[in-house]
Amino acid sequence: MVKPKKRIVNRFEGNPILTAEDFPGDIVSVFNCGIVKKDGKYVMVARCEDSSFGRYMWVCDSDDGIQFTPRPEPLAMPVDNPLFMEYVHPTKSYWDPRVVNLEGQYYITHAADVTNGATCQIGLFKIDDDFQTLEWVDLISLPDNRNGVLFPEKISGEYWRLDRPNDNSFDIWCSRSPDLIYWGRPRRVLSKSCLDWGERKIGPGSVPIRTEQGWLCIIHGVRRQCTDEVYSLGVMLLDLDDPSKVLGCSTRAILAPEKEYEFLGQSVNVVFTNGTILEDDGTLRIYYGAADQVVGLAFARIDDLIESCLEDSAL
Amino acid sequence: MVKPKKRIVNRFEGNPILTAEDFPGDIVSVFNCGIVKKDGKYVMVARCEDSSFGRYMWVCDSDDGIQFTPRPEPLAMPVDNPLFMEYVHPTKSYWDPRVVNLEGQYYITHAADVTNGATCQIGLFKIDDDFQTLEWVDLISLPDNRNGVLFPEKISGEYWRLDRPNDNSFDIWCSRSPDLIYWGRPRRVLSKSCLDWGERKIGPGSVPIRTEQGWLCIIHGVRRQCTDEVYSLGVMLLDLDDPSKVLGCSTRAILAPEKEYEFLGQSVNVVFTNGTILEDDGTLRIYYGAADQVVGLAFARIDDLIESCLEDSAL
Repeated sequence: MVKPKKRIVNRFEGNPILTAEDFPGDIVSVFNCGIVKKDGKYVMVARCEDSSFGRYMWVCDSDDGIQFTPRPEPLAMPVDNPLFMEYVHPTKSYWDPRVVNLEGQYYITHAADVTNGATCQIGLFKIDDDFQTLEWVDLISLPDNRNGVLFPEKISGEYWRLDRPNDNSFDIWCSRSPDLIYWGRPRRVLSKSCLDWGERKIGPGSVPIRTEQGWLCIIHGVRRQCTDEVYSLGVMLLDLDDPSKVLGCSTRAILAPEKEYEFLGQSVNVVFTNGTILEDDGTLRIYYGAADQVVGLAFARIDDLIESCLEDSAL
Repeated sequence: MVKPKKRIVNRFEGNPILTAEDFPGDIVSVFNCGIVKKDGKYVMVARCEDSSFGRYMWVCDSDDGIQFTPRPEPLAMPVDNPLFMEYVHPTKSYWDPRVVNLEGQYYITHAADVTNGATCQIGLFKIDDDFQTLEWVDLISLPDNRNGVLFPEKISGEYWRLDRPNDNSFDIWCSRSPDLIYWGRPRRVLSKSCLDWGERKIGPGSVPIRTEQGWLCIIHGVRRQCTDEVYSLGVMLLDLDDPSKVLGCSTRAILAPEKEYEFLGQSVNVVFTNGTILEDDGTLRIYYGAADQVVGLAFARIDDLIESCLEDSAL
């Protein structure tokens, strides 16, 4: 029987909120972006690309979370750090920055393309409170791994992360760490086999959000539709004290490509998020890359997302 | 110009030294084996398979390092450990056990097939001095990774390992750890692009051997010859204080399939080692799996191997 239609994520009607035209210089696309709210203002770290396929992390500021103003220049890479330069090409690496405030320090995790697209590792930066200066910490995974996301606080005395090893399984895993440098006790969190809309790959999205019911995590999934892959968003809820345990995962894709700016771009049929903001009134703002070309915004009620995990779970 | 022939590894003339016939019950192959020397005797942990393709780790004892006697039963897996059972199938997993004595405790690293052959992680056991009881420690890598080898002592205050992530690069990497559980600071040690005989994949072999000149490591490499892959052995020398630095790597394959028992078996054209013993007179015994079918033994002079790394380096 067909379930009733249930739309719990709604697009901002002015989408896309950010495009290449908003940037100075030779920028041809802006899409997957991390974001934090700081002193009531929104600070976005957007992935931009130029016509030579150079990649940049570009900070954009906003008072209302809708109108963003890119700064004059992208973030400078720590090119004076030999380790960074050995592993991470300063403009050719692959970035989907996740930004998190952890014990008062801002961190950025990103997918570092260490071998010209053949393989990827998770890299960790610190960034100062003004989002001006990146400091390279280290690679925190072996290849091939991406979609690394730090939890925003210690859990049971340890730091935790989610990631998506690029093995043949393409599932979501977690690891934990005493210090953000050394990671261990890898556990599979969610298998893609649960999700028809993510039957090829799934991966962590934005930074997990603490709720009374558990860690709410927006995730992405990839399915094959005829000849092409389609990237959609979903949601899962993890145990507060042990995030390796899934309490529920919505059987539905909460956002899937259906607008022209999601269908068409340098990658077709993609919605992908690595940044969300939970407002005090319970609204979740989901910033997402559309078709690897522009940035879109969508809204959801956090309670609806939790309910979808628990009442309509694919587990 | 063709270099002069230089054979620095010589097979034992009575090869193979161990075959399936030497084992009780339904064992159809015995090949890649870890080994230690303890109180003047040789203790081998061999990978065995049965006709249902069940895998076993089987301890075999020897006084002379040539005649090995399998114990009556293979090692019992820690099937009462829920974590082990969740990730590692007790008879269907994939094993290439490396045995090491680290601070008086014996450890076994192995390749744990966590998803029916699709992907692999490095698992860590402890084993008692009598090699009778395995204790599961944890998985120490995310998927997809194998050929995990622990160094036999702390280096610059940390534990170290080599491994071979199964990304698209198939290179040799190292990581370090304060406690054998949490691992970090991943570094590429050697790229397969250096080695024609390992142009497809390379990987760590047996436990690194401390010499005055550096850590001597027997490695394996895979090349494509027409339609099939060929597994050969090589040797590299790493910096004593920082094993992420390669001092030299022999441009030659030191052992490549050339005997019938290396050409033919359930895998054709394979020599692979995960166990060596350095004798007091400077002889290195290389125990190796041949064609994934039987165990062979070869001898080398440690000084010749070091010289081959330094005088004939591919770097």
